[in-house]
Amino acid sequence: MVRTKMIIQYDGTNYHGFQRQINAHTVQQEIEQCLYKLTAEKITITSAGRTDAGVHALGQVIAFDSDSTIPPERFDLALNTILPPDIRALKSELAAPDFHPRYEAIQKQYRYMIYREKEQAIFFRNYACCYSRELNVKAMQGACALIEGKHDFKAFCSTGSSAKTSERNVYKCSLREKGPFLILDISANGFLYNMVRIITGTLLKIGRGRQKHDISEIFACQERSMAGPTAPPQGLYLAAVEYRN
Amino acid sequence: MVRTKMIIQYDGTNYHGFQRQINAHTVQQEIEQCLYKLTAEKITITSAGRTDAGVHALGQVIAFDSDSTIPPERFDLALNTILPPDIRALKSELAAPDFHPRYEAIQKQYRYMIYREKEQAIFFRNYACCYSRELNVKAMQGACALIEGKHDFKAFCSTGSSAKTSERNVYKCSLREKGPFLILDISANGFLYNMVRIITGTLLKIGRGRQKHDISEIFACQERSMAGPTAPPQGLYLAAVEYRN
Repeated sequence: MVRTKMIIQYDGTNYHGFQRQINAHTVQQEIEQCLYKLTAEKITITSAGRTDAGVHALGQVIAFDSDSTIPPERFDLALNTILPPDIRALKSELAAPDFHPRYEAIQKQYRYMIYREKEQAIFFRNYACCYSRELNVKAMQGACALIEGKHDFKAFCSTGSSAKTSERNVYKCSLREKGPFLILDISANGFLYNMVRIITGTLLKIGRGRQKHDISEIFACQERSMAGPTAPPQGLYLAAVEYRN
Repeated sequence: MVRTKMIIQYDGTNYHGFQRQINAHTVQQEIEQCLYKLTAEKITITSAGRTDAGVHALGQVIAFDSDSTIPPERFDLALNTILPPDIRALKSELAAPDFHPRYEAIQKQYRYMIYREKEQAIFFRNYACCYSRELNVKAMQGACALIEGKHDFKAFCSTGSSAKTSERNVYKCSLREKGPFLILDISANGFLYNMVRIITGTLLKIGRGRQKHDISEIFACQERSMAGPTAPPQGLYLAAVEYRN
């Protein structure tokens, strides 16, 4: 039995999120079915993090055990021959027998895309938050700087989270303009449920000049109601996951 | 009874093309159903051109007659309240009682998008032809210049075309690089069936240095087999339709 670590990319549009569910088409189920076709083994994969319905991944990390003759570093190629066109294996390699993509992650990076034009917005509706109103990008960038660092992100977390603590260390939170897009890149030692989408919703409110409470106030009071709304899932991408070594 | 002219935009991914068909979901059917909800009239729309399954429109033109109290210039707003998110009405206005969007078109413009990177190609699979191999763009641009002008485009037409003549006047055929994309813009007084996709397939073959017969040779012999393959529908956009006045 050998454990394989694999980096995968997916377009989440046509899936009910990553995690296996009864009566819903999910990324996990699709990959496990393809692994079954490939190996005739009933393989259960673990992942670095669930993604919600409509959320995408540029570099999700999964792991699984197999007795197959396919070597770990060739599993990506083998899997790509049968994966649907909206899921790709980018890289695979041998992992330690106890490697777990979530528990051992030391850093995760998310990206959030905002499409700012009215024109042709229908072509980006599944891949960005389409937001054509005027935004004060400088003010949003100022708020990004305040989000960096170690804080209690309780106010930026949806109810239903099972996290033990809501303290997280945000290594980077940067917002840049690129053509018709605003791109938010945020990396941290971990993320609470909906944290990036609530941060984005708050930044958009700041950009509109409609956010009453500034970032430091929200951190001080830790009230979800003081932060902005949860931005839509379509703009969110799990960009990368880092491990020691 | 008043005739309305309307410019519409659609993402063709989830449709079996524009034209109404039995047992298939098409753009025409979707718009006619929405017009029925709006007016309770069984309206049949005409269009500037059918688009195949997977082909998109930035500026398709349709026309229809209605006895509704909705004024022609407000039909776009009314329709947008009930159209699905992958179809938008961009503009509507009063048309002459005998206006026909296809017969009266004096110029049509198509766009073809080629995505040249391997990275993140899955996110463009429905909106571009993903082609990551090396291309000689200069050679392709040289070929574009030869396509401009009045020619017999018989070799660039799929069988099954009902056109009386295969002579067309190409006003513009230009290829430019924009970020990870190659964008082909082509306008003419009319297009044969699959003409833009066959031109694109031929240009890609030229870009690869694999096209035996050059453009002038193909025009001289008028053999479909001398031109390149038909490029996939996902990269094609009906960009605009022009009328007199």
